[in-house]
Amino acid sequence: MAYRIALIGYGNIGRAVEQAIIAAPDMELVGIYHHNDSLEAIQADAVLLCTPTREVEKFALQLLEKGICTVDSFDIHNQILALRDSLGIAAQTHKAVSVIAAGWDPGSDSVVRALLLAMAPQGITYTNFGPGRSMGHTVAAKAIDGIKNALSMTIPLGTGVHRRMVYVELEEGADAAVVGQKLLADDYFAHDETHMIVVDDVEALNNVAHGVNLVRSGVSGSTHNQRFEFNMTINNPALTAQIMVSCARAAIRMKQAERYGAYTMIELAPIDLLPGNKENLIKTLV
Amino acid sequence: MAYRIALIGYGNIGRAVEQAIIAAPDMELVGIYHHNDSLEAIQADAVLLCTPTREVEKFALQLLEKGICTVDSFDIHNQILALRDSLGIAAQTHKAVSVIAAGWDPGSDSVVRALLLAMAPQGITYTNFGPGRSMGHTVAAKAIDGIKNALSMTIPLGTGVHRRMVYVELEEGADAAVVGQKLLADDYFAHDETHMIVVDDVEALNNVAHGVNLVRSGVSGSTHNQRFEFNMTINNPALTAQIMVSCARAAIRMKQAERYGAYTMIELAPIDLLPGNKENLIKTLV
Repeated sequence: MAYRIALIGYGNIGRAVEQAIIAAPDMELVGIYHHNDSLEAIQADAVLLCTPTREVEKFALQLLEKGICTVDSFDIHNQILALRDSLGIAAQTHKAVSVIAAGWDPGSDSVVRALLLAMAPQGITYTNFGPGRSMGHTVAAKAIDGIKNALSMTIPLGTGVHRRMVYVELEEGADAAVVGQKLLADDYFAHDETHMIVVDDVEALNNVAHGVNLVRSGVSGSTHNQRFEFNMTINNPALTAQIMVSCARAAIRMKQAERYGAYTMIELAPIDLLPGNKENLIKTLV
Repeated sequence: MAYRIALIGYGNIGRAVEQAIIAAPDMELVGIYHHNDSLEAIQADAVLLCTPTREVEKFALQLLEKGICTVDSFDIHNQILALRDSLGIAAQTHKAVSVIAAGWDPGSDSVVRALLLAMAPQGITYTNFGPGRSMGHTVAAKAIDGIKNALSMTIPLGTGVHRRMVYVELEEGADAAVVGQKLLADDYFAHDETHMIVVDDVEALNNVAHGVNLVRSGVSGSTHNQRFEFNMTINNPALTAQIMVSCARAAIRMKQAERYGAYTMIELAPIDLLPGNKENLIKTLV
């Protein structure tokens, strides 16, 4: 029987999630909900939260209380543990599973970082992002008073250092200097070199391509100069959505195994992300 | 309290495993056993099997029967499921955990392949190996009648196609043509382009460097052209050993969680490979 999956939020991610659910051989799309819809009637094995990051917790708690699994791509790195605690209690209490921070970073990059650490425990990993549009930073920029539309580009400067190029359309009468100060003070931007550029038409610049170059040089046992590199160039919402959908499968399986709680992707067995029979997957992949 | 780890087999891998155990902050090396030692007296939380691949099952079964976890780097891809079945029954019966095929391929590459499949379910993955010495193939070549010493180099030809360059010293009086036929008929070599080259001194060529270039182009949801690449250049036994040691940690934790059985690496949560507190790991890696 197919897993019954619903989604909340129908923006870039929600639309891509819809496509990934349709493409999944073991899933049935049972509902698309908007931010303001009542969640009372939702019946699903798992619900994918395609809302802005800051609304994830509220929706997840409502669903977990009904015993429904949730998946989000919450992306504020320093608040992930707090979210895991909060959703973990709800999930355990109501016998459900929540997979959190399930995108590509945090998410699949986190899995690569964990794996490389196990392979070479001593050393340094650098995660270099972009060039590409950061969805989280773009949403954060749009939320700032005086900004009508925004596009935040992440530019890799090497060794994990990034520049934020934030292209903005201002609201009528907004003061660019005041808006710029607010932007630079926001927690999303305060830690990186950030440039705000006022433009007439943000949409003309828009492109959801993104990339990662993740590098580790480390030591296995007592042997130095072990070198690892993970690269990708991807359509950002499509990848985020696909990872969320794959994690919904893991959430439902963890619930079936009575392993209730909230998990980040490094706490999941990769095989649980994949459709089909375990033995066949092992035969093909291992 | 530190995990008590022993190892069997003191060749390239055994020596590197010793180093990796010493370097691990949460492990204590409690014994080094040779192939012919009795295993009766072994007391350990986990034993790492650093023997030739074809001896793994015999040793693992003896240890699992005593409730001791085992880790091996069994590397005959098409026999992994059978080993998992055999060790799985023993592990479940005696409340232990065995992690099998825990090297870099099969092993960490398998994890990368599983992750990429979850990220882009439709598409093709190519695993390109080398140039580098294949330990499994070198051992297999050495086991052939008439071969005194051997070195099997793996040469990547792209799109997952490889050449095997097998440098051999022959036994006195051995016929190169006969030895070559036996080599080419061996299951390790029968499926690839293989060249046997007779040399005077194999050791003069020896170098345990190796590499991988793992490439996937695939589809996330309905979005094509998602591109991924994983590269590494490494000291082969040092990496294999380190991965085995990291997997010993996971085996012991799975046993503590009463999740008895035999597992490949794609069935393990990456966080269980790592020492230290879960919350700190999530904070650092996710």
